[in-house]
Amino acid sequence: MHVVVNAAMSADGKLSSRRREQIAISGDADFDRVDRLRADSDAVVVGVGTVLADDPHLTVKDENLRDERRTNGKPANPARVVVDSSARTPSSAEVLDDDATTYVCVSDAAPVEQRAALAEHADLITAGEERVDLLRAFAALQEQGIERVMVEGGGELIFSLFEAGLVDDLSVFVGPKVIGGRDAPTLADGDGFVENFPELELGEVERLDGGVLLTWHV
Amino acid sequence: MHVVVNAAMSADGKLSSRRREQIAISGDADFDRVDRLRADSDAVVVGVGTVLADDPHLTVKDENLRDERRTNGKPANPARVVVDSSARTPSSAEVLDDDATTYVCVSDAAPVEQRAALAEHADLITAGEERVDLLRAFAALQEQGIERVMVEGGGELIFSLFEAGLVDDLSVFVGPKVIGGRDAPTLADGDGFVENFPELELGEVERLDGGVLLTWHV
Ligand SMILES: NC(=O)c1ccc[n+]([C@@H]2O[C@H](COP(=O)([O-])OP(=O)(O)OC[C@H]3O[C@@H](n4cnc5c(N)ncnc54)[C@H](OP(=O)(O)O)[C@@H]3O)[C@@H](O)[C@H]2O)c1
Ligand SMILES: NC(=O)c1ccc[n+]([C@@H]2O[C@H](COP(=O)([O-])OP(=O)(O)OC[C@H]3O[C@@H](n4cnc5c(N)ncnc54)[C@H](OP(=O)(O)O)[C@@H]3O)[C@@H](O)[C@H]2O)c1
Repeated sequence: MHVVVNAAMSADGKLSSRRREQIAISGDADFDRVDRLRADSDAVVVGVGTVLADDPHLTVKDENLRDERRTNGKPANPARVVVDSSARTPSSAEVLDDDATTYVCVSDAAPVEQRAALAEHADLITAGEERVDLLRAFAALQEQGIERVMVEGGGELIFSLFEAGLVDDLSVFVGPKVIGGRDAPTLADGDGFVENFPELELGEVERLDGGVLLTWHV
Repeated sequence: MHVVVNAAMSADGKLSSRRREQIAISGDADFDRVDRLRADSDAVVVGVGTVLADDPHLTVKDENLRDERRTNGKPANPARVVVDSSARTPSSAEVLDDDATTYVCVSDAAPVEQRAALAEHADLITAGEERVDLLRAFAALQEQGIERVMVEGGGELIFSLFEAGLVDDLSVFVGPKVIGGRDAPTLADGDGFVENFPELELGEVERLDGGVLLTWHV
């Protein structure tokens, strides 16, 4: 399995403002790049925080890319995965529509009724007692044939993936804005490391949309 | 007056871990660059949070650079400035030694005894009622002949400087580490913007010490 984390952050490392509203950090060139990355993936993963804040659809936007996937014998869109310990994903969420297969990873603690409601729209993966155990959840995804994984955020999930040692590559678009805020979501939130910080190796550095795309390898 | 903010952040936008201990984010090449930037400045500014966390000396480390300054009729080191509403800078702080002129910017709310203690080691500038009024404090510095200002952090002060419209340039070394942590200091903390985000223009992009130095213009 190969896991790439992709996100857009402000020049000061924020994914959004303290209001957690979606903010346009990148532009058309980065949008096209992200769409191609999705099309090249078997699954696109987000945390439930991102579903609740942004209600993303997580499908490939460019019809040519979808056609290309079909020509290669794949479904038009990669699978979508929500990491959601308590099954809080609303039934009306865009990720639950019929445009792609959706997996919701829940924990043992998820209430049965909410699991049942979600099971009508998605395949459930249960891993972890109180919180989703990412190693087990990703192993279950791999059993479903998912090898190329793209993670689209948010910062809580990204931190946990680094903590679990699951990240192979990190692509970050650094945009020409200052967002600020000690409570604004950053690229990697969670409890944070205090020692043994994951070390990265810098790959490509590319100017794009007035900012810069940094590719790091773990 | 020309204000450049300089800082080193992890790949995820942190200046330090949640423990607020100093973390080596950059390396020798960036260290030399920062030393040259200091030598080219009339004053180096930090918030009291940085003084309390790191106890920096804020002098020019390279003797050749200090000699160069003297040759040009300047003091060996630029002035040091601490932004410190309540005069919390300890008398033992490195920035208060005799190696350079030091200004401490306080507010009207700073206790008189603490002001008196600080006044033995530093020139006090009083601006603002509860918190230092940065526009007034920087105007007072300009009256002292300070034109080229370098700000070395931390994130609370940097946010306020953007809010006050005082920043001209932002140099950020983005280092090859993930620090993480929703409570770790970031490049711009404070309350954060929710609209009218300051827009930046990307200048130089340079690989350095395994990371990348980004220069932004406001
Ligand atoms: N700029 C960008 O590229 C970008 C991309 C995505 C999101 N965003 C922004 O990021 C914000 C949302 O990010 P977020 O950090 O709040 O949420 P998130 O990372 O999307 O989701 C975090 C949630 O996932 C659940 N979770 C389950 N197991 C977990 C585990 N092992 N580790 C971590 N989380 C686990 C937790 O909720 P439960 O405990 O309930 O399961 C947790 O609160 C929004 O403001 C959004 O706009 C920006
Ligand atoms: N990596 C780097 O390049 C770098 C550089 C510097 C610092 N750091 C790290 O950053 C952390 C310290 O940063 P910080 O953000 O906590 O502190 P800071 O920005 O250095 O200082 C903030 C303090 O300045 C005072 N202040 C007075 N007037 C202000 C105003 N108008 N706006 C904002 N602040 C004002 C406030 O305290 P009062 O209300 O008491 O005055 C405030 O708490 C440490 O962990 C340090 O290691 C890293």
